[in-house]
Amino acid sequence: MLAARTIALDGMGGDFGPAVVLGGAAISLERHPNLDFIIAGRGADIAAELDKLPALKARTRIVETDIVVAMNDKPSQALRRGKGSSMWKAIEAVERGEAHVAVSAGNTGALMAMAKLILRPMPGIERPAIAALWPTIKSECIVLDVGANIGASARQLGDFAVLGAAMARALFHLERPTVGLLNVGVEEIKGVEEVRQAHAWLKEAKLPLTYKGFVEGHEIGQGVVDVVVVEGFAGNIALKTAEGTARQVGQYLKDAMMRSLSSRIGAFLARDGFRVLKQKMDPRRVNGGTFLGLNGIAIKSHGGTDALGFASAIDLGYEMAESDLLKRVAADLGTFHDALDSEDKT
Amino acid sequence: MLAARTIALDGMGGDFGPAVVLGGAAISLERHPNLDFIIAGRGADIAAELDKLPALKARTRIVETDIVVAMNDKPSQALRRGKGSSMWKAIEAVERGEAHVAVSAGNTGALMAMAKLILRPMPGIERPAIAALWPTIKSECIVLDVGANIGASARQLGDFAVLGAAMARALFHLERPTVGLLNVGVEEIKGVEEVRQAHAWLKEAKLPLTYKGFVEGHEIGQGVVDVVVVEGFAGNIALKTAEGTARQVGQYLKDAMMRSLSSRIGAFLARDGFRVLKQKMDPRRVNGGTFLGLNGIAIKSHGGTDALGFASAIDLGYEMAESDLLKRVAADLGTFHDALDSEDKT
Repeated sequence: MLAARTIALDGMGGDFGPAVVLGGAAISLERHPNLDFIIAGRGADIAAELDKLPALKARTRIVETDIVVAMNDKPSQALRRGKGSSMWKAIEAVERGEAHVAVSAGNTGALMAMAKLILRPMPGIERPAIAALWPTIKSECIVLDVGANIGASARQLGDFAVLGAAMARALFHLERPTVGLLNVGVEEIKGVEEVRQAHAWLKEAKLPLTYKGFVEGHEIGQGVVDVVVVEGFAGNIALKTAEGTARQVGQYLKDAMMRSLSSRIGAFLARDGFRVLKQKMDPRRVNGGTFLGLNGIAIKSHGGTDALGFASAIDLGYEMAESDLLKRVAADLGTFHDALDSEDKT
Repeated sequence: MLAARTIALDGMGGDFGPAVVLGGAAISLERHPNLDFIIAGRGADIAAELDKLPALKARTRIVETDIVVAMNDKPSQALRRGKGSSMWKAIEAVERGEAHVAVSAGNTGALMAMAKLILRPMPGIERPAIAALWPTIKSECIVLDVGANIGASARQLGDFAVLGAAMARALFHLERPTVGLLNVGVEEIKGVEEVRQAHAWLKEAKLPLTYKGFVEGHEIGQGVVDVVVVEGFAGNIALKTAEGTARQVGQYLKDAMMRSLSSRIGAFLARDGFRVLKQKMDPRRVNGGTFLGLNGIAIKSHGGTDALGFASAIDLGYEMAESDLLKRVAADLGTFHDALDSEDKT
């Protein structure tokens, strides 16, 4: 039997609060019976949901709080008013070593600000990155940063490579994940100075990853590398553009299948294939942005997801909790920073 | 009958040279019988292809040159060695007023450098932008810059809005196109300083467009605006990510339809719908990056496209040649720059 892993949940986060959070936890518990939960939130609300889910109730400790961070609070407001909130207490459980990972469907900016304050950045890290799982035709890859930093320096891009490789090691069970730097392919420009500098460093650095050089936007979904490193503005735009394009093609497909009787009959006969396609493209299947670079792991679920989607975010946390990711990443970051510092490259 | 419009073609550009260029011109001429062509390149090669295409031959003037820019020449090499090349002569025909638009499937960096040198930027414009047509669930929108500039200033983003709106007016026949600024949606960061500044200016500026504020990556394909303005690094990544995602979903669909006998039979019955879908997603249907901001229009076709794809780039040139785009855009840019200068906002 596997050792128990504990996930701390912000019971009040997201558009639908405890119903979705606890529903998701119940689904995830079925998949991973060695999970334990710490769920922070309004006691009566949590208990009412737990009564419907006896298996989950048996594995859950409630941490009561009446303070809730609103979805539209600014990070500064959340820090001021949200001390002791359900979001705060979930993160605090990680900081105290009571939980391996915290998961919240609450406000991203607030979660980032609180996670940074409570868990604190690892030595040499200025700001955490948000890493997303990205479906590829082969399986999945990790893309970071998808929105925490804007205008990353070369050193930060190098940090992202180390952090992303550690996550790939934990999730994909690879000893030396492949890493690429996202860049543009137009001959004349060949990317920004920071990207070129990070490229030069990653080529030389002795790190537990295989650096594959530049990759372009269309190569992410082909799965050419396990980890794609990009500054947060372009990374967030790429992620949302891909999500939008997938929905757009799905719409084209629906329209095309409705245009004639024979198409409609054909689509009905092929419903088994379409069901598989729908599952494959279900955005709930891949849900959760992982904050990397802190002394503890926090995962942001989409705020508008349902129980199935929230369960994916918990599953991700489960995988991350399985490995000794953080110990190893601290050592790898140290190696990278020492190499930079010895060449006065900070 | 419509007045004749003349398109100048780089007969030697692209991976396949005259066969694809002239094949594309012949297709486009069938669609637009009032087209005339100036085709620059090796006389014997061009004439040999033209002999197979009598209708095109009757509407074509050959400009002979033995100089050809290689697909892998750097822009500086192309400028040094490519004077008088087929690419050069196509652009020169626009500068001399002999052609309305130049189209080349050659090397992007070389084409940009030559177009800039020969056609020169419009007053107040530092660098031209590359605008792409982007299919949406409604129809199409224009996205710029998709790769000519990296790290655009707020003023340049404003220029892109004016240039993109002019292109939308020409292509979509709209008096006041809607324009959005591409940004990230994460609460805490809300985009870079340049984007925020451009947002403030565009809200106030008296321009012949309707400024709709920020848009996010997933909204491009929904067609929420006619023109999406973005700095070139993120724009290039977004464009390629969307192309890659569309191919990826197409691959998922193929796999799903092959997985069972009933799916295969269904897909066969629905072949009419799949044919429409395939046409809709055919990358050759939308081909051509338009260089905007110069005193003349140059269009870059994908280098690896076939005659059908090259015809799309010529069709785009035809639409652009139809309007008095350049005169109008010079006036609009003047309005925008005067407003900035009067507030000392450069």
